[in-house]
Amino acid sequence: MNKKIYELAEIIDNDLINENLTEVEREQIADNMKQYLPSGAIVLAQANPLSGDIKYNAQKALKWIKWANRLKVNAIVFPELFLLGYPLGDIVDRFPIVVEENIEWLNALAKFTTDTKVIIGFVNFNNGKIGKRYYNSVAVLSNGKVERIINKTLLPNYAEFNDVRHFESADVDSASRVVYIGGKKAGIIVCEDGWNDFDFFEKNLYSVDPVEVVVNEQHPDFIINCSASITRAKKEQLKHNMLSFVAKKHKTPIVYVNQVGSGECLSFEGASRVYDENGVLTARAKSYEEQFFIVDAEDKDGVINPLPSGLEKTLDSQKAFSLDYEPDLERTYLTIIQSIRDYFKKTGFERAVLGLSGGLDSTVCAVLLADALGAENVCGISMPSRITSSESKNDARQLAENLGINFLEIPIKDIFDVTRGKFDELFAGVEKGWNCRYEKSYTNDNIQARARATILWGVANEFEKCLSIATSDKSEAYMGYATINGDMSGGFAPIADVTKTKLFALAAWMNENRIQKNTIPQSVIEKRPGAELAINPKTGKPLLAEEALMPYEFLDEVIWRVENLHQSIGDMVDVEFLYEKKESVSKSQKQEWLKKFFRRMAYAAYKWSILPPAPIVDARSINKAEFRYPIIASKVNFNKTSEDDKYCSLLNI
Amino acid sequence: MNKKIYELAEIIDNDLINENLTEVEREQIADNMKQYLPSGAIVLAQANPLSGDIKYNAQKALKWIKWANRLKVNAIVFPELFLLGYPLGDIVDRFPIVVEENIEWLNALAKFTTDTKVIIGFVNFNNGKIGKRYYNSVAVLSNGKVERIINKTLLPNYAEFNDVRHFESADVDSASRVVYIGGKKAGIIVCEDGWNDFDFFEKNLYSVDPVEVVVNEQHPDFIINCSASITRAKKEQLKHNMLSFVAKKHKTPIVYVNQVGSGECLSFEGASRVYDENGVLTARAKSYEEQFFIVDAEDKDGVINPLPSGLEKTLDSQKAFSLDYEPDLERTYLTIIQSIRDYFKKTGFERAVLGLSGGLDSTVCAVLLADALGAENVCGISMPSRITSSESKNDARQLAENLGINFLEIPIKDIFDVTRGKFDELFAGVEKGWNCRYEKSYTNDNIQARARATILWGVANEFEKCLSIATSDKSEAYMGYATINGDMSGGFAPIADVTKTKLFALAAWMNENRIQKNTIPQSVIEKRPGAELAINPKTGKPLLAEEALMPYEFLDEVIWRVENLHQSIGDMVDVEFLYEKKESVSKSQKQEWLKKFFRRMAYAAYKWSILPPAPIVDARSINKAEFRYPIIASKVNFNKTSEDDKYCSLLNI
Repeated sequence: MNKKIYELAEIIDNDLINENLTEVEREQIADNMKQYLPSGAIVLAQANPLSGDIKYNAQKALKWIKWANRLKVNAIVFPELFLLGYPLGDIVDRFPIVVEENIEWLNALAKFTTDTKVIIGFVNFNNGKIGKRYYNSVAVLSNGKVERIINKTLLPNYAEFNDVRHFESADVDSASRVVYIGGKKAGIIVCEDGWNDFDFFEKNLYSVDPVEVVVNEQHPDFIINCSASITRAKKEQLKHNMLSFVAKKHKTPIVYVNQVGSGECLSFEGASRVYDENGVLTARAKSYEEQFFIVDAEDKDGVINPLPSGLEKTLDSQKAFSLDYEPDLERTYLTIIQSIRDYFKKTGFERAVLGLSGGLDSTVCAVLLADALGAENVCGISMPSRITSSESKNDARQLAENLGINFLEIPIKDIFDVTRGKFDELFAGVEKGWNCRYEKSYTNDNIQARARATILWGVANEFEKCLSIATSDKSEAYMGYATINGDMSGGFAPIADVTKTKLFALAAWMNENRIQKNTIPQSVIEKRPGAELAINPKTGKPLLAEEALMPYEFLDEVIWRVENLHQSIGDMVDVEFLYEKKESVSKSQKQEWLKKFFRRMAYAAYKWSILPPAPIVDARSINKAEFRYPIIASKVNFNKTSEDDKYCSLLNI
Repeated sequence: MNKKIYELAEIIDNDLINENLTEVEREQIADNMKQYLPSGAIVLAQANPLSGDIKYNAQKALKWIKWANRLKVNAIVFPELFLLGYPLGDIVDRFPIVVEENIEWLNALAKFTTDTKVIIGFVNFNNGKIGKRYYNSVAVLSNGKVERIINKTLLPNYAEFNDVRHFESADVDSASRVVYIGGKKAGIIVCEDGWNDFDFFEKNLYSVDPVEVVVNEQHPDFIINCSASITRAKKEQLKHNMLSFVAKKHKTPIVYVNQVGSGECLSFEGASRVYDENGVLTARAKSYEEQFFIVDAEDKDGVINPLPSGLEKTLDSQKAFSLDYEPDLERTYLTIIQSIRDYFKKTGFERAVLGLSGGLDSTVCAVLLADALGAENVCGISMPSRITSSESKNDARQLAENLGINFLEIPIKDIFDVTRGKFDELFAGVEKGWNCRYEKSYTNDNIQARARATILWGVANEFEKCLSIATSDKSEAYMGYATINGDMSGGFAPIADVTKTKLFALAAWMNENRIQKNTIPQSVIEKRPGAELAINPKTGKPLLAEEALMPYEFLDEVIWRVENLHQSIGDMVDVEFLYEKKESVSKSQKQEWLKKFFRRMAYAAYKWSILPPAPIVDARSINKAEFRYPIIASKVNFNKTSEDDKYCSLLNI
């Protein structure tokens, strides 16, 4: 395809965001572009919707549609459920008005359509007597009317997907799925409909493959897949391989349009694309940006925008646990940045306040927030206690200076002292009724963390559009190594799905790859993590996290094995961990760490349940949007017992 | 059935809990009972499992099975998924070891079976190449072996149900579902399999009715339904009508066994039962208690234990909104008591600490906690601030005395003052960077609530097995009228699904119906609710909640209409509210309240997401286990616009 088109399309992208052109200018640009457009041109509307705000989505869609109309392309294709805005939560069931409204908005949109067909996701009523109330549907609009409605067949209902909660599965009525676009037959499928090839997957979730049915029965010239598919470690390689395989197998090009932007915990990376009938990638949109992306399903020579560096390698590099996070760091960075930006924008917030301890977690959070919201919208507060080292205080201040964020140092000694004093009286009083006081307790440590959260929430309450930030990371979330109403409290938790070893890598990566180099003081990356809430009596120094837990390199490999390989204690005892290649670990020590992991994990489930929204980054997570561990399941045995043991333990009943 | 059986069975119930009999005594009792047992006797094992603790569940099951063996009854029937323990969360997917283990425990249990058949729910692998990894299954064990496995067909996946996340739907293979029990043909179905009659329901969720298939193809003598079905307002009447209808329609008795006990947010009330071939209820087990319940499907004359008072009326009385909560109060009370007791027991906690403000919420919570855990395990702390009235302080103290719980008064003036002082310096500092300080703010109000939570969490951290309690109610949760890290913070939230007007009724009901009368000071029930965090400048007195929100009678009707009728603003404007029968409300005032409701509700979604576990009580709730509102969906329009308005608002694009 003529590269001139892409240059001119950037003017459109800009106009769609800034509305900076007059109607006359728009027509001139369209006229100019039309000479380069191939006859099969269609637009992939890689756009960012707002969940539940149908008016916003419809108005946005129309801006895009009008540009497609001006260019007289054959069609413009929006992502799955665009009109209602994905993710939906359960609002369609509790508030059916939003479904009624989305159908009226669809009809209103249709009135503005021409020969240029509009393909757009929405929620449709199921008027049959049987089944769920709705379909997950795609409408084809043209010449002022709703020309066709296609209902989704395969409904994912695992991890972050909840399609079966709301939608009925439609039979694959292949004739209804074919629409003429520029004289060619296009077969339309919706997201998961395209993920059930019986040759590509070893196991299949569903008994029908809509792509195969449509291809075999209707022989379309190409397939269009309207999607809303989130980014995750390892997923791009799988997606690429699968789409390429299916296109080649059926000798049918696939045009894949994906949502962009973040919805609470789910991040969509865009990267919409075309595969030709040989399975060769012929065009790919940008990642993490809205784009009015012009393609031709039969063109061999589209623009292939680069993926975030190394993304395609992630599958290979993560078949085994690795401490080399390099291939995934740009994607991780962009995913979190987009998540912060969209969460704030979509909830109406602009500013963030966070505690700066001088440690790794808060440091990384501060950089991510500054990049997502602008340094002027971030306020970092250093809140030293008696235990805080001068190095930590200096690191916090230095970071804030480097970033150019607002900075304050507010010592918490006096709040700690008055609360501590109160506690002496309080606990003596409680002891009169309860003879069960701990000899050693974390109570004093926690006062510090809670005093800090009170300060941060105070700022968030006192200043407009300001959210406080929870700085917990994934390794510590697994261990429950975070204080309720303390460091795990906030309006958003940017790094809750990033393990500690990956955070170190991310910090180093940001120091090298951001425009401003070495923003993060080297001492932050070099020091060993610790909450600085308590003194280790053995060393006389602040207790290090690894002393309280286990080495992070070991811990993070356990997390990786649990999430990716679903391993139990027995599975892990006998495999060699990366950590064991460097440090000798006795078998009993290893077993002790593994048992500690599962014990602490089961008790951490309560903390997960009250953690604020956080972006999903990894291949699997403990994010509430994808995984729920019942808090009452505190006594699961993660260590296999033999059948004999079981028989014997019943014999005594 | 001979009533002697039920007397003797109480000895068994007692032995199952306390293991107070010798083996010889057990045999004697069994011999004694056998003379009264009908030839068709089967036992409904209405038991309380522990999610994920398979060993515990298996050992418990075996105790019950051994009693059934001693009596030589034909069968003993356990609830759905008993062996793994319902609810499951997502543990079977993340930790497949628990499924492997539950199958080994099933095999071990089978070794202890005799002619007395054991019917028990478990998780089975789906070894096919297609579909989810597991089935939701029931095993029939007898004579040392697994005789039969039946896989569930209808998989509920709405509200609190998540079956499709883990399970594959099995075809209704009717032959496999029939088992001979005492020479009779029993057709076995699993929970939702029994909820899809095409004549009873106007709309059906599924296209097949397993009961009909089994009856038509196999002509069983009776149906057995293994269930785990939670209690909710209005559900008992529906369940009764449906089971009775289906039994009568098919001229086939139905034996229905239900789980008892609470799992985090879900409460199962037991009340297992038998309907004869005319749809007549012939036997019913106790509610909210484990019971070894002996029935005979063909016996017309079983024991019908009473339901909590008035329960059966709830459907009728709640077809319209009512402020007469009387019919549902005993069920509400028992549901919350069971939830507290099981949540504490199952997570390993014993003690509760809560703030006593002298207001309704904390007062009702204290009574419920004392009844569930024992007064000696509850510590109430009055934490007056400058604004707290002496009446409130007295009410708190009086309540604690009446209940006999531990009580302390800890004024928070000094924590407030030092934090407030700190805030002056802090905010002045932040203002240098941000010119967006609120002129009026809630910051000072919130200090008080957060200081109190710090004290409560301090006690919870310092004393063994102690949880702090969040006292938020449902009306205030909807309005977001609760402080983060303040009154909405805690380990459990007992009344988060009870509206304010119902809480008043519950308080009065408890004063009348608990053994100790009038525990709650009358002044608590009479005073108008207010958080006592701020002074209303108009009145010079502490701000009342209704001044900040809207009248509770109005608010609670809105909640009822949204949850039960799914109404939007337009639907509600023109119907007369109960409140309007008493007080004149202008149309503009009503519209303002309705808009305020939806605006505050959408912004409260974040608070719902970090609310601690709470029992579901009402017909519908905002509990995380059943409903998720996307936090980013803050701009949903709950007010219908016309098609013309939509068209016009697009014309300007």
